[in-house]
Amino acid sequence: MAARSSRSRKRLRRRRKVDRPLTIAVDAMGGDHAPAAAVQGALRAHEQGVPAIILVGDKAALTAELGPAGLPEGVTIRHCSEVVGMDEPPGQGLRRKPDSSINVCALLVRDQAADGMISAGNSGAAMGAALLRMGTVPGVERPAIATLIPSKQGRVVLLDAGANTDCKPSHLLQFARMGAVYAEVSLGIARPTIGLLSIGEEDTKGNELTKIANRMMAASLETFRGNVEGKDMVNQAVDVVVCDGFVGNVVLKTGEGFAELFAALLKAELARFPRLLEDQDLLQALRHFERKIDYAEYGGALLLGVRGVCVISHGRSGPKAIARAVEVAHEAAAGRVPERIAAAFTQGR
Amino acid sequence: MAARSSRSRKRLRRRRKVDRPLTIAVDAMGGDHAPAAAVQGALRAHEQGVPAIILVGDKAALTAELGPAGLPEGVTIRHCSEVVGMDEPPGQGLRRKPDSSINVCALLVRDQAADGMISAGNSGAAMGAALLRMGTVPGVERPAIATLIPSKQGRVVLLDAGANTDCKPSHLLQFARMGAVYAEVSLGIARPTIGLLSIGEEDTKGNELTKIANRMMAASLETFRGNVEGKDMVNQAVDVVVCDGFVGNVVLKTGEGFAELFAALLKAELARFPRLLEDQDLLQALRHFERKIDYAEYGGALLLGVRGVCVISHGRSGPKAIARAVEVAHEAAAGRVPERIAAAFTQGR
Repeated sequence: MAARSSRSRKRLRRRRKVDRPLTIAVDAMGGDHAPAAAVQGALRAHEQGVPAIILVGDKAALTAELGPAGLPEGVTIRHCSEVVGMDEPPGQGLRRKPDSSINVCALLVRDQAADGMISAGNSGAAMGAALLRMGTVPGVERPAIATLIPSKQGRVVLLDAGANTDCKPSHLLQFARMGAVYAEVSLGIARPTIGLLSIGEEDTKGNELTKIANRMMAASLETFRGNVEGKDMVNQAVDVVVCDGFVGNVVLKTGEGFAELFAALLKAELARFPRLLEDQDLLQALRHFERKIDYAEYGGALLLGVRGVCVISHGRSGPKAIARAVEVAHEAAAGRVPERIAAAFTQGR
Repeated sequence: MAARSSRSRKRLRRRRKVDRPLTIAVDAMGGDHAPAAAVQGALRAHEQGVPAIILVGDKAALTAELGPAGLPEGVTIRHCSEVVGMDEPPGQGLRRKPDSSINVCALLVRDQAADGMISAGNSGAAMGAALLRMGTVPGVERPAIATLIPSKQGRVVLLDAGANTDCKPSHLLQFARMGAVYAEVSLGIARPTIGLLSIGEEDTKGNELTKIANRMMAASLETFRGNVEGKDMVNQAVDVVVCDGFVGNVVLKTGEGFAELFAALLKAELARFPRLLEDQDLLQALRHFERKIDYAEYGGALLLGVRGVCVISHGRSGPKAIARAVEVAHEAAAGRVPERIAAAFTQGR
């Protein structure tokens, strides 16, 4: 354990010395709209400031997507011959397809040819590739998926959003520590406050898991603010909301469902007055509103606790969502999230 | 067990012979805005067609709320001297305050002086009073809270919305059976379809609880449609969505939070164009929209599996939400939900 920890610290230190622009590997073959959405999204992220991108996938297919303009400076293609299918069992896919785009992305990060990866492909395979190739940060029992969700004042970090369906209280405590590091980087907050998602604000409210986790978190996290309810979550009672991966995934998808439902209901009501749908001010206000509740704006989910940056996007991501996910990966790599989590766990913070 | 079951059937049969209009007991002392909201809400429900209502609470306080017009025909007051506080431990409150409005409501239902009760007071105490005074339907291991949530086509029954924080797979199966009965009555659907809330549509996706529950439900419920995700829930993939009470309560409150958040974000965007806020057509469309996403419109939550009708409302219910909760109780009593659940469990449906 000590040897592994020391080796990992060496690797994390070494990474900082690499002399090249921050580079994100994009699984260009993953997702419902690949490779078109992945290529367009990557190019858009590049235009918006991500300095270097490696498109990972079938060279002929990717070149065809690029058109006559070809590759802009800073964007390269790393050819690979295989793809893990969206519905393929993740473990099997990774074992049988070592030259798959997802696996190659993870290897590029492991070998420091890239500083982070994103995939809108098979999310189980993306998580598996990151775990297997990059390894976990010493001290982290279970990596967790962190995602940003809309809130009244801006954004809140929610984790675990789906990596661990059954958790122990100690896992939730670790999620809180990792989530705080991510909030520092993604929200730019010095000492992020932490809440435990439960069904009442009192410490005694919750299920068996959260009641114990509440006590553990209260005993060891200075910025722990106790339980928060689903309603408080979007009212920004805290910066980081912690829950198990089953609950987090349900909450995330319910939120997406409600966002779509509300947009549809609103449009149906407005459509009863055709004149309104031609009012330019109203249309502009609605566009701004939709952007604020559009999950695509919030980019992919970041896998915390692995020794590298891995962003997992929705299978149905379009170019906008892919671009945002690449930016999330770039931001996490620039903010050195894995290294900061390693430091936090070494200090037992 | 046989004796208890037979006694219960006798009581359920007897209830049908009572010769008086359907009567709902309203805990007029419960909730953040009691007694004003409870009294106004009850009167509104009466105007809207609930034939008989008993206001339960301090007679002087309730009379003061009524004003000079006094009680309309069909509405009566049942005086009681105590109130269980909103933050009082439920068990203690019920033990120490036998003449509390919540307890008296439950006794009125037990003694067939009323056909249902509603309370916006201490929800733990309301649930406890219903369990203790009315008892559970034979065969039901755990009563559950069912609530209607907005969806694309109308409404969906979600349960358990908070009665049981830690569940066994067999509990979820029972929730499904009770939820189906409630959907028949509240949604008017002959053979309601049932889904298990999980994190993927495949049977193998979920946590330890839902994976086993999925198999049990598939084996014994004809209208079971497998797992549904949070997103599918509001898209009306099924009529009844089943989950444990922790998840259900988190989902419900998250939905409420998102509804408020989206309304606030929309208003903020519209406010940038003051002209829009004076457009009568737009204002009317927004009112209709808000009504569709307003949880108050969906009334209280019905406790299923007890031998009587008990609706639990939000503590912060205003008159509109109380009126709707009284209507939900009336509808459940008229539809004989407890009797139908008893029949379903006797037939092992």
